Amino acid sequence: MVMVDIDDIRAAAKRISGRHVRTPLLPWPLAGSQVWLKPENLQPTGAFKLRGASNAIGVLSDAARASGVVTYSSGNHGRAVAWAARQYGIPAVVVMPDSTPAVKVEGVRVLGAEVVLVPVAERERRAEDILAERGGRLVPPFDHPDVIAGQGTVGLEIAEDLPDVDTVLVPVSGGGLISGIAVAIKSLRPQAKVIAVEPELAGDLAEGFAAGRRIGWPHEWTARTIADALRVPLVAELTWAHIERFVDEVVTVSEDAILEATARLAISARIVAEPSGAVAPAVALIRPEVASGRTVAIVSGGNVEPSLLVRVLTEYAT
Amino acid sequence: MVMVDIDDIRAAAKRISGRHVRTPLLPWPLAGSQVWLKPENLQPTGAFKLRGASNAIGVLSDAARASGVVTYSSGNHGRAVAWAARQYGIPAVVVMPDSTPAVKVEGVRVLGAEVVLVPVAERERRAEDILAERGGRLVPPFDHPDVIAGQGTVGLEIAEDLPDVDTVLVPVSGGGLISGIAVAIKSLRPQAKVIAVEPELAGDLAEGFAAGRRIGWPHEWTARTIADALRVPLVAELTWAHIERFVDEVVTVSEDAILEATARLAISARIVAEPSGAVAPAVALIRPEVASGRTVAIVSGGNVEPSLLVRVLTEYAT
Repeated sequence: MVMVDIDDIRAAAKRISGRHVRTPLLPWPLAGSQVWLKPENLQPTGAFKLRGASNAIGVLSDAARASGVVTYSSGNHGRAVAWAARQYGIPAVVVMPDSTPAVKVEGVRVLGAEVVLVPVAERERRAEDILAERGGRLVPPFDHPDVIAGQGTVGLEIAEDLPDVDTVLVPVSGGGLISGIAVAIKSLRPQAKVIAVEPELAGDLAEGFAAGRRIGWPHEWTARTIADALRVPLVAELTWAHIERFVDEVVTVSEDAILEATARLAISARIVAEPSGAVAPAVALIRPEVASGRTVAIVSGGNVEPSLLVRVLTEYAT
Repeated sequence: MVMVDIDDIRAAAKRISGRHVRTPLLPWPLAGSQVWLKPENLQPTGAFKLRGASNAIGVLSDAARASGVVTYSSGNHGRAVAWAARQYGIPAVVVMPDSTPAVKVEGVRVLGAEVVLVPVAERERRAEDILAERGGRLVPPFDHPDVIAGQGTVGLEIAEDLPDVDTVLVPVSGGGLISGIAVAIKSLRPQAKVIAVEPELAGDLAEGFAAGRRIGWPHEWTARTIADALRVPLVAELTWAHIERFVDEVVTVSEDAILEATARLAISARIVAEPSGAVAPAVALIRPEVASGRTVAIVSGGNVEPSLLVRVLTEYAT
């Protein structure tokens, strides 16, 4: 297994420069005078996923890239691959479950990618079939060193902007984001803590981390959380290897805390997060003993249904 | 009259560095592939005003600064002065109308400033009385070269990040922001257009600019717009001098366009703007012939009532 290191992340930073938004750290006084947000919801596709996708495409040779890329994702990763492929001027195919809401399908199509709709269980196989028929490369959502290195640029930027950071709070689904960030932070600021955050209702990593081995949850369990980007029920082998080695702690937050944090981010930090993007800030709000010292909370994405945003604002902020 | 120049703005940038958020440019595909947002709503006080306040306080000698600062404002400028004063560890007095909503009074008090509530017509006189009694310096909201130079750092950052910018869209109230930005842009990229934007219902500058002289509107007229930070009914002499010399055009937008832009910013750019902060983006959305070439629209602030945000999302985005 090839572990990602800080040189991979530095190379990724160079590769994606100008293709992503260099997000600033935003002071978040509501959660304390030593808390900052890293607003990855401000990426043009609305989530950090752009970094990994851009790096995975950028690292290809011109010849390999020209034959295009394929991925499977109904959410932020599919959109990120479509965006990055368009920037490079190459074709992209995004395989999506036929249950995907029309608005998300359109969000990918408008970026110029071809969308293939299939029954959810057939997603990966269909992606492989397309690769076999047409050629091209697969850009997986998290289980790949180039994707992890791209996401790690978030950690590199945190260390640049706040060299004396003490705690970094990172949401976890498949584990690509936290793997990359943990490598960057532990390389540049070894004494800082990297803390993984999950919804209680999708706490597969929390259970596995406590047990010291990779533990999967049934899809039906993780499907219960409102944080729909965090429903992957098992981290990958590759991301587990990084998490086991570099992550200090895994904490979980309630659905109520996630929704409240979504509302507070909109009013007091003036950014729109999707519930999945609010789980790390939720820890800074409600568990100050975890967010100790100079703390950065990652806001991983902001693609929220307007009706849900209205609901949380009505319930928690008015 | 002392005109602000690019050296003043460069000095301001050095002075406020580390005391404000260095905001990035955000691509805004909804308005076209050549439109970017400059999200000043992400400043810790929720508006660009922090820049001018920090510069006006930073420029004082240590001895002058120690005696504190005074200002009059019910809104974003009062909050900015309170924040900047706290950063410098000096006392601040903010004179506010006794009609100011409690939540805004508390927002200033929580930053450690003393709030003095007076009938609205007595604001400036009371501020002068306090200065006469206690000493200290006045930090006016826009009618001062140090404040204009501080706001001009927005323009400097735009020219750094997008050196070939063609059009910059800037909201106008008292004129401090556009004066500073226009000086920076015309110094660094003379062929770019700087366009002022007002609500139709507070179009005093549009009328004056067309007539070639400063024209004031009655308070009752400008009070009609939902964009409450843009209700100043007459630009200052100093800001007029900058606007007359450096601004290319003044355009106005309807209340409906302002509210729609507020909703679109939340959903498609994932940032929360107050209506005043959405008037420049509104032009990019609905008047593409004005937003020509590589265009930057300033999002000046994001301090919106949750109930209003709910209303615009319900009406325009669901």
